[in-house]
Amino acid sequence: MINFNPGPSQLYFTVQDHVRKAFKEGIPSISHRSKQFEKIFSEATENLRTLLSIPSNFQIYFAASATELWERVLQNLVGTHSTHLVNGAFSKRFYETALLLNKKPNLIKADDGKSFDGKITVDKETELIAITHNETSTGVSVSINLIDNLAKENPQALVAVDAVSSLPYPSFNFHNVDSVFFSVQKGFGLPAGLGVWIVNEKCHVKAEKLLSSGISIGSYHNLKSYQEFGKKNQTPETPNVLYIYLLARVAADMLERGIINIRRETEYKAAILYHLLAKHPLMKPFVKAKEDQSKTVIVADCGDHMQKINQALQAKGMTPGDGYGAFKSNHLRFANFPTHSKEQFELLVDTLEGLV
Amino acid sequence: MINFNPGPSQLYFTVQDHVRKAFKEGIPSISHRSKQFEKIFSEATENLRTLLSIPSNFQIYFAASATELWERVLQNLVGTHSTHLVNGAFSKRFYETALLLNKKPNLIKADDGKSFDGKITVDKETELIAITHNETSTGVSVSINLIDNLAKENPQALVAVDAVSSLPYPSFNFHNVDSVFFSVQKGFGLPAGLGVWIVNEKCHVKAEKLLSSGISIGSYHNLKSYQEFGKKNQTPETPNVLYIYLLARVAADMLERGIINIRRETEYKAAILYHLLAKHPLMKPFVKAKEDQSKTVIVADCGDHMQKINQALQAKGMTPGDGYGAFKSNHLRFANFPTHSKEQFELLVDTLEGLV
Repeated sequence: MINFNPGPSQLYFTVQDHVRKAFKEGIPSISHRSKQFEKIFSEATENLRTLLSIPSNFQIYFAASATELWERVLQNLVGTHSTHLVNGAFSKRFYETALLLNKKPNLIKADDGKSFDGKITVDKETELIAITHNETSTGVSVSINLIDNLAKENPQALVAVDAVSSLPYPSFNFHNVDSVFFSVQKGFGLPAGLGVWIVNEKCHVKAEKLLSSGISIGSYHNLKSYQEFGKKNQTPETPNVLYIYLLARVAADMLERGIINIRRETEYKAAILYHLLAKHPLMKPFVKAKEDQSKTVIVADCGDHMQKINQALQAKGMTPGDGYGAFKSNHLRFANFPTHSKEQFELLVDTLEGLV
Repeated sequence: MINFNPGPSQLYFTVQDHVRKAFKEGIPSISHRSKQFEKIFSEATENLRTLLSIPSNFQIYFAASATELWERVLQNLVGTHSTHLVNGAFSKRFYETALLLNKKPNLIKADDGKSFDGKITVDKETELIAITHNETSTGVSVSINLIDNLAKENPQALVAVDAVSSLPYPSFNFHNVDSVFFSVQKGFGLPAGLGVWIVNEKCHVKAEKLLSSGISIGSYHNLKSYQEFGKKNQTPETPNVLYIYLLARVAADMLERGIINIRRETEYKAAILYHLLAKHPLMKPFVKAKEDQSKTVIVADCGDHMQKINQALQAKGMTPGDGYGAFKSNHLRFANFPTHSKEQFELLVDTLEGLV
């Protein structure tokens, strides 16, 4: 079966070989305080740095999930006020996390399936602007341009980008973002259980400032603790050594393939699927505005034909992702990650094309 | 190499086969909202329930590590005052976690290598008594009797037991504990990256009470959220599906072997190593009092002979654990987990016996 579910995703095609090698080398039981682990940590972070062009003023840390990182971002970077751009289920949960942590978040809302129009006014008290780059529930992407403008217009605020279902595709301007995070079971095609947090020196300063003022920034996964251990290429706790190893290897594989090629192929695959959806008699793209259409999670509004289309795909060995939440009976979601080949997307498009 | 490091431990001997099977069945990329995942969740929790005789008023939840669970226990079960029994590096970190979360913890201290003597007086304001059953740094175990007495003498407080490097060996009286947690890379011999939290209904009530009074109990991994998803055999976030599957399988293997046998073998292996240490010319047990000696992490005080002993073991294909922290140059630590066979322990003892 070809799995187009947006997460957990189909594994990157090299993962199983790397797992086999890891067990042969005893990686799952090495000490996280050993030189061998420090080398793995360093390879994982440096391969990511090269792959995503992350500047040297950013550090890279590991958590268990992007869900954990919603919490860590808000604990470490917000005393009271964050402002959240919300246009779907996941950006909403980021906002709700702030409420659960007793912060006072502001909400800027767009309808499901839409990005944010016109001038976005951010309260001047805002310490952090929280942006979900790719709304996995509905397939909307916020433009890099919008992120850049928000950063420039609000120099007093930090900018945090949830890039869960988009990386490694997008190329962020790292001088306009302070924190980016994702989990590895989407674009990187790894088993779920690892989150990656990319933060610059301003985030460290902010966390230190909150701590000095008596606000708790969490315990082991606070930025002070991350930094102290990260300097030694270590983690504060016993981490998921195996998955950090796998991330190092998959990032190396992607480097070899070339990020330019990965991005170009992503755009090609997205183009042929959106092209088909635009003219298909049984379905249409849920996201109308071309510039808001996600390249990595493509959502088809199938109306009453969802079951029929789903069954036709399953019959040809393809599993689409279900629609999310209220859209479960009408939508199908198609992940377009680096592990999905051009041939797989061509088969998908051909199969959908044959449906009338 | 036979790995006696207390953590990450040598893998349980069935793990690699289970990993192979998991990849063959596509487990790493199944949806965490699927029936297939719910079945895995249910098998993992029910196998643990049977293995450890966990009563039905307890629920079982998953986190990323025991380090995370220090934080979750304190967030969910303590408004202001916890009392911590501290006799080494790990119980101290549990206490320090409370400080970092802006709680007001009390400290009851014993020297390194010792348990807690005489009557332990717990402040009546204490909401939670935090006990580290097995101090991994020094090889001291707190007796089940001590836990039972503390619970009976302090009915106003919840009792939380960190059982990181002891389970599945100890048999707790679950009517005298409210919360037990551990991570899987010790006694269960799995790769690091999963923590297990066992909580009773009193813990849920306490968390709800804190929440109603306006105290943050965290976001996705708070007990309310755990319970809501746990009822459906699901997790609040995308979890480490593969490791939950592996835990289900290893717990099933242990059930087949029989917990009575595992406990008996653990005692046999501990007995022959402590017997040797008591009479060895170059080393002695670091923990003097027999009743305080951990059965699962056995610490040898090697004085000036550490290097020599270490090298002799390595030459025979055995890796002991380093001494912890200040004891790095004098101690060696030997994990005695279910994955370590009687034959491996006999080889260890024979090799040490040959050293003079």
